[in-house]
Amino acid sequence: MSAEIICVGTELLLGEILNSNAQFLALELANLGIPHYFQSVVGDNPTRLKQVLAIASDRSGLLILTGGLGPTPDDLTTETLAEFFGVPLVEQPDVLEDIAQKFAERGRHMTPSNRKQALIPKGAEVLPNPGGTAPGIIWQPRSGLTILTFPGVPSEMHQMWRETAVPFLKRQGWGKQIIYSHTLRFWGIGESALAEKVAPFFHLTNPTVAPYASQGEVRLRVSSRAPSQAEAQQLIEPVVEQLREIAGADYFGANSDTLASVVGQLLTDADQTLSVAESCTGGGLGQMLTAIPGSSHYFLGGVISYDNSVKVSLLKVNPTDLQKWGAVSKPVAKQMAAGVRSLLSTDWGLSITGIAGPGGGTETKPVGLVYIGLAKPDGTVECFKYPLGQNRSRDSIRYASACHALDQLRRRLIIRLNSLL
Amino acid sequence: MSAEIICVGTELLLGEILNSNAQFLALELANLGIPHYFQSVVGDNPTRLKQVLAIASDRSGLLILTGGLGPTPDDLTTETLAEFFGVPLVEQPDVLEDIAQKFAERGRHMTPSNRKQALIPKGAEVLPNPGGTAPGIIWQPRSGLTILTFPGVPSEMHQMWRETAVPFLKRQGWGKQIIYSHTLRFWGIGESALAEKVAPFFHLTNPTVAPYASQGEVRLRVSSRAPSQAEAQQLIEPVVEQLREIAGADYFGANSDTLASVVGQLLTDADQTLSVAESCTGGGLGQMLTAIPGSSHYFLGGVISYDNSVKVSLLKVNPTDLQKWGAVSKPVAKQMAAGVRSLLSTDWGLSITGIAGPGGGTETKPVGLVYIGLAKPDGTVECFKYPLGQNRSRDSIRYASACHALDQLRRRLIIRLNSLL
Repeated sequence: MSAEIICVGTELLLGEILNSNAQFLALELANLGIPHYFQSVVGDNPTRLKQVLAIASDRSGLLILTGGLGPTPDDLTTETLAEFFGVPLVEQPDVLEDIAQKFAERGRHMTPSNRKQALIPKGAEVLPNPGGTAPGIIWQPRSGLTILTFPGVPSEMHQMWRETAVPFLKRQGWGKQIIYSHTLRFWGIGESALAEKVAPFFHLTNPTVAPYASQGEVRLRVSSRAPSQAEAQQLIEPVVEQLREIAGADYFGANSDTLASVVGQLLTDADQTLSVAESCTGGGLGQMLTAIPGSSHYFLGGVISYDNSVKVSLLKVNPTDLQKWGAVSKPVAKQMAAGVRSLLSTDWGLSITGIAGPGGGTETKPVGLVYIGLAKPDGTVECFKYPLGQNRSRDSIRYASACHALDQLRRRLIIRLNSLL
Repeated sequence: MSAEIICVGTELLLGEILNSNAQFLALELANLGIPHYFQSVVGDNPTRLKQVLAIASDRSGLLILTGGLGPTPDDLTTETLAEFFGVPLVEQPDVLEDIAQKFAERGRHMTPSNRKQALIPKGAEVLPNPGGTAPGIIWQPRSGLTILTFPGVPSEMHQMWRETAVPFLKRQGWGKQIIYSHTLRFWGIGESALAEKVAPFFHLTNPTVAPYASQGEVRLRVSSRAPSQAEAQQLIEPVVEQLREIAGADYFGANSDTLASVVGQLLTDADQTLSVAESCTGGGLGQMLTAIPGSSHYFLGGVISYDNSVKVSLLKVNPTDLQKWGAVSKPVAKQMAAGVRSLLSTDWGLSITGIAGPGGGTETKPVGLVYIGLAKPDGTVECFKYPLGQNRSRDSIRYASACHALDQLRRRLIIRLNSLL
C-alpha cells in the first residue's frame, strides 16, 4: 500500500508559493519507508478536489492532504472530504474550546468563521495543531483507506506530522521497512559517460542505483530497503565501494559534501593554505570556499582582479603579456595564480580568467572560454583551458568556472595525498 | 481549455529537490492568462506515467511535462509518451548533429546513450534546447490536445519556455486575456511595515496588489487583466506610481532589477568606480556586482581579506586597532573600506566584516553581527552596524550582509543624484 500527497491551494496554482510541503512530506515518507508514487496539486475548488480524491483513493491507501483548513470561505478541504465520503460534519466541543483559548491567549477576538474549524467529519479523529487554530483529521472513511489532513502553514504542518502523524502511522504498521540512501557526487565527467561506466548497476533492485545531473555535477543515488538502518546500510556499502572504484578521481564526495568542503578537508589534512585571484567569477570562488564553516583555517583570502589594472598592480601580471595575449589567456592565468600565492604567502594560489558573456566574445576567444591557473607549493604553475560553450548563461559559466577551479585543486591535493601513503 | 503541469522524476518523490519547475510554470501560465487547475508529480516509471497521462489528457487540453529527457535508462518521458499515443519514435538528424556539436564544443566525448535524445515521436516537432543536449517536443497527438516537454534542469527549461513555448502558445491562440504584472522591489523595510503603509491597495481588484517577502527583500506584485498589453499597463501605472511614492527610498527597483544592477546603473550615471573589501562574505559582494553584464565599467575589483593578515598587509588596517577592537568592529570596517578605495584608486570603497557563524560568536559580538564600511568620493568614511540575528543560517547572514552593503551605497548614490537635480 502506498501513500499519496495532495496539496490544496489556489496560491500553488498561481505560482505564488513554492510547494515546500510536498518536499517535506516526500522526504518524511522516504525516511519511513512508505512508498509514494503520486503527488497532486489542486485549487480551493470542491468539484476539482473531489475529482482528485476519486483518483487518489482508488490507487493509494494513505492520502495526505495539506491546505484548505483555514477559517475563510475558500478553505474547503474538510467539508469536501465529508461530502465526498457522504458523511456529515460534527462540531467538536473540545476543538472549539481550544480555538477559543488560543484567541484569548493572543488577545484577539474569535470570529464566527473560526467556529467552522471545529467541524470534522463524523467518525474522524482530531489531529491536534499545537501551533495554530486549524486542527487536522485522522480518518479511515473505509477499510484500507486512511486520510490525514494538515494546514498549509509549513511550521504547523511539520509539528503535527512529527508529534501525531508519525506515531499514528507507526502504530498502524506503516514504515516497517527503512529506505536508506547514499548519494555519490562526481565532477569532471558527463552524465552519459559515467552512466556507461556503471551501466550494470542500474539493473540492481536492492539497492537501486540512479543517476542525476545538475549544473555540471553528476550524482548517483544508491538506495536500499531493509527492516533496519544497519541492514539497509550493509546492502549499500559494497555497491558504493565498487562505484567509487570505477569512477576513480571523478568521484569527489558523498551526500552533503561539496567541492569546496572536500578541498577544505584536503587542505586541512595537508596543513596547507590557499589564496585566489578571480577575474570573471568576481568573487564567486572565494564565496564558495568561505561557505564552509571553519574555512578561515586554510583560506586566507584573495584578489578580485576584475579590471586589468588590478591584475598588474596587485597580482604583478606582466603588462606586456597582458597586451600580447589578452586577459583571457594562459600566461595571464598563470601569472595571476603565482601573483596571489606570493602576495598572500600561501601554499597554493588558484586563479580564474574567462569570458562569462553575454558580450565580449570574439572569433578566437568565444564566450565561455576560461583559463584556470594553479600555483603549487613547489612554486611551479599549471594552467587548464576550458571551452565551456557559448550557449550557456553568464551565471552558468561563472559557476562552472569556480567548480572546475576547485576540482583541479582537489585532484592535485589527492595526488599529493596518495604519494604520501 | 486548461493547462496541466506534470513533473516527472523519482527525485521529486524522494523529496531530494524542491519542485521549483511547477512554481515557475504556474506563474508563467498565470501571466499568460492560461487557466490551470491540476499539477501532478510522478516518478520515472512508464506504467504510472501512463496512468497520469490518461487522467490528464482527459481533463486538460495542454499538458506541460518536465523531466525525464536525459540520456540515461531511467529517462523515459519521450518514449512513454510515444507508447501511450501508439506512435513510433523517429531519429531526428538535425537534433543528433546539434548534440554532437555541443559535445565537440565542450571537448567531451559523445556516447551512444546520447543518441537516444535525438529520438522524438513521429509527428512531433522539436522544442530546441539551446542550453543543453536534451531537446523537448511540441506535439499535437490528437485534435484538442497539445503536449510540451522540457528537461528538468530549471535554467534549460526556462530558456526553452520563453524562447519557443510562449510564442508557440500565443500563435495557437492561448492567453487572449493578457495578465500583466509589475513587481516593485524593496529593501530596508519589513513585510508587515510596508503592508501597513500600503494597506488600502490590497482591496483593489484590477489591478490587484499582493505582497511577498523573501530573504529580507519585500516585493509588491501589481497585476492587471485586460484585452491588450497597453490597456493592462495603463491600469497598472497610476498604482505603481503611488506605491513608489509611499515607499520612498525603500523602493529600489522593478521586475528583474537587483540591488547590484541598480547600484551599477547609478554608478554608471555618476561615472564613478567601486572596489570592495570582504571578510565574512568572502567574495559574495563582488560576485553579486559582477553578475551584472557590463559591470567592468564601474567595478574594478577588490580584496578578499578573510584572514586578518590580509587586512593588515593589503588594506593597511592598523594592527593595533585590529588587536584592540577586533576584526568585527567599526574602526576595522572603516579602515577596510578606505584601504581598498585607496589601493584600487576608485571613487567608492565598500567593506563588510562580520560573524557569519555558526561558530565564532561571543557575548558582546554574537553571530550575525556585521559592520559595513563605505569610503566615499570625498575621502570620508561611514560605518553601519547590523545585528542580523543569531538564528539565521551562515548563508542567510552572508547574503543579507552583501545586500545591506549594496543598499547603503545605493542610498548614498541616490542622495548624490538628487542633490544634482
